Amino acid sequence: MPVDPHRRDAMITAAVLDLLRTKGPKAVNVEAVAAHAGVAKTTIYRRYRDREEMIAAALTSLTSPPPPPEQPSLDALLQWLIEQSVNAIEGGIGLGGIAALLTDEVTTFTELIRALLVEHRAALARELHDAADPAELRDLDIETLLDCIVGAYLAERARRGTVEPGWTQRVLHCLRPAFTEQPPKRRTS
Amino acid sequence: MPVDPHRRDAMITAAVLDLLRTKGPKAVNVEAVAAHAGVAKTTIYRRYRDREEMIAAALTSLTSPPPPPEQPSLDALLQWLIEQSVNAIEGGIGLGGIAALLTDEVTTFTELIRALLVEHRAALARELHDAADPAELRDLDIETLLDCIVGAYLAERARRGTVEPGWTQRVLHCLRPAFTEQPPKRRTS
Repeated sequence: MPVDPHRRDAMITAAVLDLLRTKGPKAVNVEAVAAHAGVAKTTIYRRYRDREEMIAAALTSLTSPPPPPEQPSLDALLQWLIEQSVNAIEGGIGLGGIAALLTDEVTTFTELIRALLVEHRAALARELHDAADPAELRDLDIETLLDCIVGAYLAERARRGTVEPGWTQRVLHCLRPAFTEQPPKRRTS
Repeated sequence: MPVDPHRRDAMITAAVLDLLRTKGPKAVNVEAVAAHAGVAKTTIYRRYRDREEMIAAALTSLTSPPPPPEQPSLDALLQWLIEQSVNAIEGGIGLGGIAALLTDEVTTFTELIRALLVEHRAALARELHDAADPAELRDLDIETLLDCIVGAYLAERARRGTVEPGWTQRVLHCLRPAFTEQPPKRRTS
């Protein structure tokens, strides 16, 4: 019985992400991904022109983040930004990918990932723009704010080796005044 | 003519930091440092009990940050925190050290560096406490704020490969409201 093509897509994507996170970007090539996913190389080349296209497809979480909740409070919106920033690492390039960006010479991989990160930023900024009342946001340097968020995650991982429970709330509390001048809404119960 | 012992200290420190940054923590051992510094291994062992003590001594910038300016404005104080956070990387463990913290299994090195980072945090918090009027600071989660600062640096490096001019000012502007509720002081000229 032939394997469902969508299932093959998922197997290839999972193999790319798994190799990226466990062995680092250098290990991600068509041959290794084919072996890891248990598919033929031709199965990959039928879908993707080359290694770069294959990696970019596996990292669509970076370019198409899910939208924020409908009619979000400002806190919910900031929480969504925090979750998407973490997801770009945990569900995306992984700490191995980040380490490669920090230390490697510029390679096709670093250029590709940086381009995807720029798209990720633009997508988040667009969603934020659509969801928030500009009057409620502080005159916002969204690039720097996102750097602070994703960076706080990296620092926590580097410093502790893990992310402690309550981390999202700590970051939200710390960065809230950088995000909006509105006081937090009191819960009415 | 014998070499001045202080100069030997400096040569050993420079060799430790240079190896750490260029070849990563695994490359930093007494033998490699002796060769790199051009001193005998016994010269190192006369000063330091072991590899850990040698690394810790080279990284005193992490445990003894310079104090903030006298009677600093709040902006000057936040700028000092940003500079010290950057210095812990650029003058200290380097991006190679950070990458090792992000990806390596727990080793003697990661444990040592994490302990030094805890000391660095405590030293900065102490200096901040001594220099600032508590009434002027926001109810402050200093750990998370420092993670945001050092993280913003890591994110900028990962994303761009370099730190753009004006980065300190961008971070200062972004994080200022997380640091204090006081409006910025106008310059009187």
